[in-house]
Amino acid sequence: MPAAGVAGVQRLASVIRLRPEKADDYLRLHAEPWPEVMATLKRVGVGNYSIFLHGDLLFSYLEFSGESWEDAQAEIARDPDTRRWWALTDPCQEPAPGAQPGEWWSAMRPVFLLE
Amino acid sequence: MPAAGVAGVQRLASVIRLRPEKADDYLRLHAEPWPEVMATLKRVGVGNYSIFLHGDLLFSYLEFSGESWEDAQAEIARDPDTRRWWALTDPCQEPAPGAQPGEWWSAMRPVFLLE
Repeated sequence: MPAAGVAGVQRLASVIRLRPEKADDYLRLHAEPWPEVMATLKRVGVGNYSIFLHGDLLFSYLEFSGESWEDAQAEIARDPDTRRWWALTDPCQEPAPGAQPGEWWSAMRPVFLLE
Repeated sequence: MPAAGVAGVQRLASVIRLRPEKADDYLRLHAEPWPEVMATLKRVGVGNYSIFLHGDLLFSYLEFSGESWEDAQAEIARDPDTRRWWALTDPCQEPAPGAQPGEWWSAMRPVFLLE
Protein backbone atom coordinates (compact mmCIF):
# COMPACT_ATOMS: atom_id res chain seq x y z
CA MET A 1 0.00 0.00 0.00
CA PRO A 2 1.30 3.48 -0.81
CA ALA A 3 2.05 5.92 1.98
CA ALA A 4 -0.04 9.07 2.10
CA GLY A 5 0.21 12.32 3.95
CA VAL A 6 2.39 13.04 6.96
CA ALA A 7 5.83 11.49 6.62
CA GLY A 8 5.89 8.24 8.54
CA VAL A 9 2.11 7.83 8.66
CA GLN A 10 0.27 5.60 6.21
CA ARG A 11 -3.51 5.84 5.96
CA LEU A 12 -4.81 2.37 5.06
CA ALA A 13 -8.38 1.45 4.21
CA SER A 14 -9.87 -1.93 3.42
CA VAL A 15 -13.23 -3.59 2.98
CA ILE A 16 -14.73 -6.99 3.77
CA ARG A 17 -18.22 -8.48 3.84
CA LEU A 18 -20.04 -9.08 7.11
CA ARG A 19 -22.05 -12.32 7.05
CA PRO A 20 -25.55 -11.13 7.95
CA GLU A 21 -26.27 -14.19 10.08
CA LYS A 22 -23.16 -13.40 12.17
CA ALA A 23 -23.64 -9.65 12.41
CA ASP A 24 -24.74 -9.71 16.05
CA ASP A 25 -21.68 -11.71 17.07
CA TYR A 26 -19.37 -9.36 15.20
CA LEU A 27 -20.89 -6.21 16.64
CA ARG A 28 -20.87 -7.57 20.17
CA LEU A 29 -17.20 -8.53 19.94
CA HIS A 30 -16.20 -5.16 18.52
CA ALA A 31 -18.17 -3.21 21.10
CA GLU A 32 -15.81 -4.65 23.74
CA PRO A 33 -12.59 -5.56 21.96
CA TRP A 34 -10.01 -7.49 23.97
CA PRO A 35 -7.37 -5.26 25.60
CA GLU A 36 -4.61 -7.73 24.63
CA VAL A 37 -5.55 -7.45 20.95
CA MET A 38 -5.66 -3.66 21.15
CA ALA A 39 -2.26 -3.62 22.87
CA THR A 40 -0.68 -5.65 20.07
CA LEU A 41 -2.06 -3.26 17.45
CA LYS A 42 -0.70 -0.27 19.35
CA ARG A 43 2.68 -1.93 19.86
CA VAL A 44 3.26 -2.47 16.12
CA GLY A 45 2.25 1.10 15.25
CA VAL A 46 -1.47 0.98 14.49
CA GLY A 47 -3.57 3.90 15.72
CA ASN A 48 -6.72 5.87 14.91
CA TYR A 49 -8.31 2.62 13.74
CA SER A 50 -12.03 2.70 12.97
CA ILE A 51 -14.41 0.19 11.42
CA PHE A 52 -17.72 1.31 9.89
CA LEU A 53 -20.69 -0.66 8.58
CA HIS A 54 -22.98 -0.03 5.61
CA GLY A 55 -25.38 -2.78 4.62
CA ASP A 56 -23.21 -5.90 4.77
CA LEU A 57 -19.93 -4.12 4.06
CA LEU A 58 -17.35 -3.36 6.73
CA PHE A 59 -14.91 -0.53 5.98
CA SER A 60 -11.72 -0.25 7.96
CA TYR A 61 -9.57 2.88 8.28
CA LEU A 62 -6.33 2.95 10.23
CA GLU A 63 -3.12 4.90 10.51
CA PHE A 64 0.18 3.04 10.60
CA SER A 65 3.26 4.76 11.93
CA GLY A 66 5.75 1.89 11.95
CA GLU A 67 8.46 1.09 9.44
CA SER A 68 6.94 -1.83 7.52
CA TRP A 69 3.26 -2.64 7.30
CA GLU A 70 4.14 -6.11 6.04
CA ASP A 71 6.31 -6.80 9.10
CA ALA A 72 3.67 -5.33 11.40
CA GLN A 73 0.98 -7.58 9.96
CA ALA A 74 3.24 -10.60 10.44
CA GLU A 75 3.86 -9.61 14.06
CA ILE A 76 0.13 -9.18 14.68
CA ALA A 77 -0.49 -12.63 13.20
CA ARG A 78 2.01 -14.20 15.62
CA ASP A 79 0.20 -12.87 18.70
CA PRO A 80 -1.68 -15.72 20.44
CA ASP A 81 -4.47 -13.49 21.75
CA THR A 82 -5.04 -12.03 18.30
CA ARG A 83 -5.24 -15.55 16.88
CA ARG A 84 -7.90 -16.41 19.45
CA TRP A 85 -9.74 -13.19 18.57
CA TRP A 86 -9.61 -14.00 14.86
CA ALA A 87 -10.96 -17.49 15.57
CA LEU A 88 -14.12 -15.69 16.70
CA THR A 89 -14.23 -12.85 14.18
CA ASP A 90 -13.14 -14.62 10.98
CA PRO A 91 -16.32 -16.74 10.76
CA CYS A 92 -18.30 -13.47 10.79
CA GLN A 93 -16.65 -12.26 7.58
CA GLU A 94 -16.04 -13.21 3.98
CA PRO A 95 -14.15 -11.43 1.18
CA ALA A 96 -15.99 -8.46 -0.31
CA PRO A 97 -17.25 -8.60 -3.89
CA GLY A 98 -14.29 -7.81 -6.14
CA ALA A 99 -11.68 -9.16 -3.72
CA GLN A 100 -8.51 -10.46 -5.34
CA PRO A 101 -7.84 -14.21 -5.06
CA GLY A 102 -6.48 -14.94 -1.59
CA GLU A 103 -7.45 -11.53 -0.23
CA TRP A 104 -9.30 -11.38 3.09
CA TRP A 105 -9.75 -7.67 3.84
CA SER A 106 -9.42 -6.00 0.41
CA ALA A 107 -7.01 -3.08 0.37
CA MET A 108 -8.62 0.06 -1.07
CA ARG A 109 -6.97 2.57 -3.38
CA PRO A 110 -6.46 6.07 -1.95
CA VAL A 111 -7.81 8.67 -4.37
CA PHE A 112 -8.01 11.87 -2.29
CA LEU A 113 -6.45 13.37 0.83
CA LEU A 114 -7.01 16.62 2.71
CA GLU A 115 -4.73 16.62 5.74
CA MET B 1 -23.93 10.97 13.30
CA PRO B 2 -22.62 10.06 16.74
CA ALA B 3 -19.35 11.50 17.97
CA ALA B 4 -16.55 9.05 18.60
CA GLY B 5 -13.25 9.22 20.37
CA VAL B 6 -11.41 12.38 21.37
CA ALA B 7 -13.75 15.01 22.80
CA GLY B 8 -14.61 17.47 20.08
CA VAL B 9 -13.61 15.21 17.19
CA GLN B 10 -16.14 13.20 15.23
CA ARG B 11 -14.95 10.46 12.90
CA LEU B 12 -17.41 10.31 10.01
CA ALA B 13 -17.45 7.74 7.22
CA SER B 14 -19.71 7.46 4.21
CA VAL B 15 -20.00 5.55 0.96
CA ILE B 16 -21.20 6.32 -2.54
CA ARG B 17 -21.02 4.61 -5.93
CA LEU B 18 -18.59 5.81 -8.60
CA ARG B 19 -20.12 5.64 -12.09
CA PRO B 20 -17.60 3.51 -13.98
CA GLU B 21 -17.92 5.57 -17.15
CA LYS B 22 -16.98 8.70 -15.17
CA ALA B 23 -14.20 7.16 -13.09
CA ASP B 24 -11.40 8.85 -15.02
CA ASP B 25 -13.01 12.28 -14.56
CA TYR B 26 -13.49 11.70 -10.85
CA LEU B 27 -9.96 10.49 -10.25
CA ARG B 28 -8.42 13.34 -12.25
CA LEU B 29 -10.40 15.95 -10.30
CA HIS B 30 -9.48 14.43 -6.94
CA ALA B 31 -5.81 14.13 -7.83
CA GLU B 32 -5.70 17.95 -7.99
CA PRO B 33 -8.55 19.23 -5.83
CA TRP B 34 -9.28 22.95 -5.98
CA PRO B 35 -7.56 24.95 -3.22
CA GLU B 36 -10.72 27.01 -2.67
CA VAL B 37 -12.74 23.86 -1.97
CA MET B 38 -10.09 22.55 0.39
CA ALA B 39 -9.97 25.91 2.20
CA THR B 40 -13.72 25.82 2.83
CA LEU B 41 -13.51 22.32 4.28
CA LYS B 42 -10.69 23.37 6.59
CA ARG B 43 -12.52 26.53 7.62
CA VAL B 44 -15.60 24.66 8.85
CA GLY B 45 -13.53 22.10 10.79
CA VAL B 46 -12.94 19.20 8.40
CA GLY B 47 -9.50 17.57 8.51
CA ASN B 48 -7.75 14.26 7.92
CA TYR B 49 -10.18 13.61 5.07
CA SER B 50 -9.45 10.63 2.81
CA ILE B 51 -11.38 8.97 0.01
CA PHE B 52 -10.62 5.38 -1.03
CA LEU B 53 -11.86 3.27 -3.95
CA HIS B 54 -12.73 -0.43 -4.18
CA GLY B 55 -14.46 -1.63 -7.31
CA ASP B 56 -17.09 1.03 -7.92
CA LEU B 57 -17.46 2.04 -4.29
CA LEU B 58 -15.98 5.23 -2.86
CA PHE B 59 -15.38 5.23 0.89
CA SER B 60 -14.91 8.58 2.63
CA TYR B 61 -13.34 9.08 6.06
CA LEU B 62 -13.00 12.47 7.72
CA GLU B 63 -12.56 14.05 11.12
CA PHE B 64 -14.78 16.96 12.10
CA SER B 65 -13.72 19.24 14.94
CA GLY B 66 -16.41 21.94 14.71
CA GLU B 67 -19.52 22.35 16.84
CA SER B 68 -22.25 21.15 14.48
CA TRP B 69 -21.75 18.89 11.49
CA GLU B 70 -25.17 19.89 10.20
CA ASP B 71 -24.23 23.59 10.26
CA ALA B 72 -20.84 22.84 8.72
CA GLN B 73 -22.45 20.95 5.84
CA ALA B 74 -24.81 23.85 5.25
CA GLU B 75 -21.90 26.29 5.20
CA ILE B 76 -19.99 24.09 2.74
CA ALA B 77 -23.06 23.95 0.51
CA ARG B 78 -23.24 27.77 0.41
CA ASP B 79 -19.68 28.13 -0.92
CA PRO B 80 -19.77 29.08 -4.61
CA ASP B 81 -16.51 27.31 -5.46
CA THR B 82 -17.73 24.13 -3.80
CA ARG B 83 -20.92 24.35 -5.81
CA ARG B 84 -18.89 24.59 -9.03
CA TRP B 85 -16.78 21.63 -7.87
CA TRP B 86 -19.89 19.56 -7.15
CA ALA B 87 -21.27 20.42 -10.59
CA LEU B 88 -18.30 18.43 -11.92
CA THR B 89 -18.10 15.67 -9.32
CA ASP B 90 -21.80 14.92 -8.74
CA PRO B 91 -22.32 13.46 -12.24
CA CYS B 92 -19.52 10.98 -11.45
CA GLN B 93 -21.44 9.51 -8.53
CA GLU B 94 -24.73 7.88 -7.62
CA PRO B 95 -26.09 6.62 -4.28
CA ALA B 96 -24.56 3.34 -3.11
CA PRO B 97 -26.69 0.19 -2.94
CA GLY B 98 -28.63 0.36 0.30
CA ALA B 99 -28.72 4.16 0.46
CA GLN B 100 -31.70 5.65 2.25
CA PRO B 101 -34.19 7.63 0.14
CA GLY B 102 -32.74 11.08 -0.49
CA GLU B 103 -29.25 10.12 0.67
CA TRP B 104 -26.30 11.03 -1.53
CA TRP B 105 -23.22 9.89 0.36
CA SER B 106 -24.58 7.23 2.78
CA ALA B 107 -23.49 7.75 6.37
CA MET B 108 -21.92 4.61 7.80
CA ARG B 109 -22.36 3.20 11.28
CA PRO B 110 -19.23 3.19 13.48
CA VAL B 111 -18.74 -0.25 15.04
CA PHE B 112 -15.17 -0.17 16.36
CA LEU B 113 -12.55 2.36 17.44
CA LEU B 114 -8.97 2.05 18.62
CA GLU B 115 -7.63 5.56 19.24
